[in-house]
Amino acid sequence: MKTDIDIAQAADVWPIEKIAQQAGLTSDEWEPYGRDKAKIQLHERTKQQKLGKLILVTSINPTPAGEGKSTVTVGLADALASQKHKTMVALREPSLGPVMGLKGGATGGGYSQVIPMADINMHFTGDFHALTSAHNTLAALVDNSLYQGNPFNLDPRRMLWKRALDVNDRALRHVTIGLGGPTSGVPREDGFDITVASELMAILTLSKDLADMKVRISRIVVGYNYNKEPVTVSDLGFAGAITTLLKDAIKPNLVQTLAHTPALIHGGPFANIAQGTNSILATKSALHLADYVVTEAGFGSDLGGEKFLDFKVPLLGKVPDTIVVVATVRALKMHGGEDKKNLSTPNIEALQKGLANLGRHLKSMKRYGVPVVVAINQFTADTIEELNMVKAYAAKFDVPAYIADVWSQGGDGAQELATGVVLATDKAKNYQPLYQPDDEALVKIEHIVHEIYGGQSVVLSDKAVKQLQTFKKYGWDKLPIIMAKTQYSLSDNPNKIGAPENFDIHIREFIPKLGAGFLVALTGSVLTMPGLPKHPAALDIDIDNEGHIIGLN
Amino acid sequence: MKTDIDIAQAADVWPIEKIAQQAGLTSDEWEPYGRDKAKIQLHERTKQQKLGKLILVTSINPTPAGEGKSTVTVGLADALASQKHKTMVALREPSLGPVMGLKGGATGGGYSQVIPMADINMHFTGDFHALTSAHNTLAALVDNSLYQGNPFNLDPRRMLWKRALDVNDRALRHVTIGLGGPTSGVPREDGFDITVASELMAILTLSKDLADMKVRISRIVVGYNYNKEPVTVSDLGFAGAITTLLKDAIKPNLVQTLAHTPALIHGGPFANIAQGTNSILATKSALHLADYVVTEAGFGSDLGGEKFLDFKVPLLGKVPDTIVVVATVRALKMHGGEDKKNLSTPNIEALQKGLANLGRHLKSMKRYGVPVVVAINQFTADTIEELNMVKAYAAKFDVPAYIADVWSQGGDGAQELATGVVLATDKAKNYQPLYQPDDEALVKIEHIVHEIYGGQSVVLSDKAVKQLQTFKKYGWDKLPIIMAKTQYSLSDNPNKIGAPENFDIHIREFIPKLGAGFLVALTGSVLTMPGLPKHPAALDIDIDNEGHIIGLN
Repeated sequence: MKTDIDIAQAADVWPIEKIAQQAGLTSDEWEPYGRDKAKIQLHERTKQQKLGKLILVTSINPTPAGEGKSTVTVGLADALASQKHKTMVALREPSLGPVMGLKGGATGGGYSQVIPMADINMHFTGDFHALTSAHNTLAALVDNSLYQGNPFNLDPRRMLWKRALDVNDRALRHVTIGLGGPTSGVPREDGFDITVASELMAILTLSKDLADMKVRISRIVVGYNYNKEPVTVSDLGFAGAITTLLKDAIKPNLVQTLAHTPALIHGGPFANIAQGTNSILATKSALHLADYVVTEAGFGSDLGGEKFLDFKVPLLGKVPDTIVVVATVRALKMHGGEDKKNLSTPNIEALQKGLANLGRHLKSMKRYGVPVVVAINQFTADTIEELNMVKAYAAKFDVPAYIADVWSQGGDGAQELATGVVLATDKAKNYQPLYQPDDEALVKIEHIVHEIYGGQSVVLSDKAVKQLQTFKKYGWDKLPIIMAKTQYSLSDNPNKIGAPENFDIHIREFIPKLGAGFLVALTGSVLTMPGLPKHPAALDIDIDNEGHIIGLN
Repeated sequence: MKTDIDIAQAADVWPIEKIAQQAGLTSDEWEPYGRDKAKIQLHERTKQQKLGKLILVTSINPTPAGEGKSTVTVGLADALASQKHKTMVALREPSLGPVMGLKGGATGGGYSQVIPMADINMHFTGDFHALTSAHNTLAALVDNSLYQGNPFNLDPRRMLWKRALDVNDRALRHVTIGLGGPTSGVPREDGFDITVASELMAILTLSKDLADMKVRISRIVVGYNYNKEPVTVSDLGFAGAITTLLKDAIKPNLVQTLAHTPALIHGGPFANIAQGTNSILATKSALHLADYVVTEAGFGSDLGGEKFLDFKVPLLGKVPDTIVVVATVRALKMHGGEDKKNLSTPNIEALQKGLANLGRHLKSMKRYGVPVVVAINQFTADTIEELNMVKAYAAKFDVPAYIADVWSQGGDGAQELATGVVLATDKAKNYQPLYQPDDEALVKIEHIVHEIYGGQSVVLSDKAVKQLQTFKKYGWDKLPIIMAKTQYSLSDNPNKIGAPENFDIHIREFIPKLGAGFLVALTGSVLTMPGLPKHPAALDIDIDNEGHIIGLN
């Protein structure tokens, strides 16, 4: 069987100018990066074009079985394009850490991929590297301030700005720096986050232009002084330099799908510690250029979906016209308690039980007042009976469900889904946000926990309670909430799969992200720096002298 | 007065396709990165074109006064081009750390610059970021091996592979990693080098193609096992993945000077811990494409010059046709003991004394049997008497000296220098390497110390003596030597400026770089991670919403 990279490398790649033309970009609205990638920047004229329809792809809680959300996103877009709709894909950029670790690439799969697959999965147009570089430059500048007489009276025990690398490197989670004597800095505890968890990543993907980005960067709180007052990048005077380092990274990237549908791939904030969707600029640009834009939110609808609908929508100024919830028979069987190794065996009982997970997601997505459809991402071993069970289950929620075979057929395998989605986008919408901007932090969290997770109470740790008091003093208490929760469960316990009930959500700590403009609520133990598995993907990756790559999946 | 960035941003930038055509590249030998940058890869046909003349620009020992070696390199190339010679520049890429610190950019100055200046000084085409990323991916994989049962029996106390970032960050020189308990790695001491000091940087710039690079990466020794035996990347199985991450970084970058002379800018190994010149591939490509190639070696001729002539030349397969030694009246006065703040006042006595530094460099460069010329990089305050003294001094060595005013005049200010250089390249050459490949390490070092530095003896620390014994066992004892010495003095003491005599060189330690294929001999305290000054350049850098940058110099 052909691997993803085999298919991608054998693809008929169109020159990027052809894709740019097809997308409706004028020749000075894009700059090439190689022959098959470009960065775009829309003119005012283009920005005045009316917005297309927005289709948000989300999913049930992810399982080790894999749901194929990106694959469905790309396949659906190719199907829409094949039906002569002017379509664009708007996706996140993959993080290199997981590519070298367990997860592999994040550019779709099989015959529903964005290309050049290897480039997008590695360095692409350098956006993540620019962010890593800007992040660590700021960290070096902050530690230099500590070292050079500490004019801002920074308390080395109360620093918030860590360092960042786009690797999976558990050994960098907790470090001590500044060792080696008086010429090598001030010793203190520190740590590294993966670049996608950097506040700069959140900022880049939320900014509407360079000026907005600079204002946001200025607001970043790097730590507290000995009087426990926040010290910002603006105080330190580095906002200009850090913004300058991101002058190109802020521009969305244009590539194509295997079927030559234009795709904007830009930014990759964690759906955990940040908003988990591609940039406002990319989504907005796609909406100006195309009649149908298919985009994706990270993890399940409880994480990426909720954040898109409550946090991104107001900034984007556009409500999705349809929400697609991706589910697979295999993943639902896992939610019903089946073991990963038995997923190819029909198991009606496990499926029946697992469907409750889908039900929760349908219920919570429907509450936003936007049409919802289910995409059943078909696998070879799925039986007709199993597939029909999912359809029938969705029908109970008045939600149409379509079987899509996008991995092996590309857009051809999503024709029904595409037709169904187009129908859904024409339905009436009545967008209902989950909370009001003025609600207290705790009220916002309660809305999320009750209406999205299906949980009982919100339990704040002593630290979290104290933090909210302090934040009130600083005027941070009404910022939007970004929940950092395990993606595997609707609860904060990754083992509670399916549709857990009667659970509480425990908020361990808040992390203020003043630049991004939200408060992260940490539940359970959310890792912001992943580790590598025993057999990392890197062991299988190789390249020959002609540049042909194997093992990158 | 206009700053470098003002001049660069006001420049008439030609589209990169025009520069590529002018350089003689066919349309499939280059790929655009934006409208004004490209990556190149020559066809076999082009690689068979005969090599042009090679002009190596080096200098006296650098001083805080600045010598303007890159500026002279660019100005000389523009002057040659204006005289209708087919010319290319071959330079290193600047490191971002110093750009944000004290040094500022490294793309020439005034009217002798390569452009786009801001891009080249920041992320350029992502080469350094790819290296940083590959370096830290390898580090994460190595620490993961330690964590996942340590199948290679690695001794965490004897690790050689550190981490790397392209920042000036003294707080990362000495760190402890793997803290935070049993799920967050194995605790050990570690440190970060600046990316230009990474062995991968040396490897990238020494490799003749992807296959050669993979072989070199395989040979990297990441550390020792508990039996004190070296463990390599090949043992661990990661050479393919790391090479894949560098598949584009290995391709030279094409840009232009302000006068539209094609410039290949590629790689930036430290002239200290590595060879200190741009890549073999870039220099070789330029030699295939142009009749005159002007390239530069890092720091003074004792560091970059010696390494070019003894280490790079055999790999390049080409001896320079002329060596240009850059000197300034100001720097020579500093070598004569004058204080930096008085350099604008004529001071014949200090100049007379300082000329001895130039004399040493002329003597040692002449010994290679290659024609030598002096370029006096003129500053406004230099008097005719002072400039003539330098000329007369060079004449004693039978070396012609030319005054060049490249900062304010560009190529127009280097017409005489260019004519002189062309004459010199036509002279007979009789290249004499400093040592033979089969010489013992100590013999090689003695040649460098006696004939280049003008020192007396080589003193090895006990550790260094022991290391040489061990290295003999491993067959590493006859590798080429890369001296890591202060750039400010011919000795290993940065305070001994001018022309010190009767000094010994103390080798503290060797660092084996098996992938790059050399032994680094560390003298004095050579820092592989710089720090930031009290007033870092980052404080003055800013950007407006239209992308106009200030303060980047």
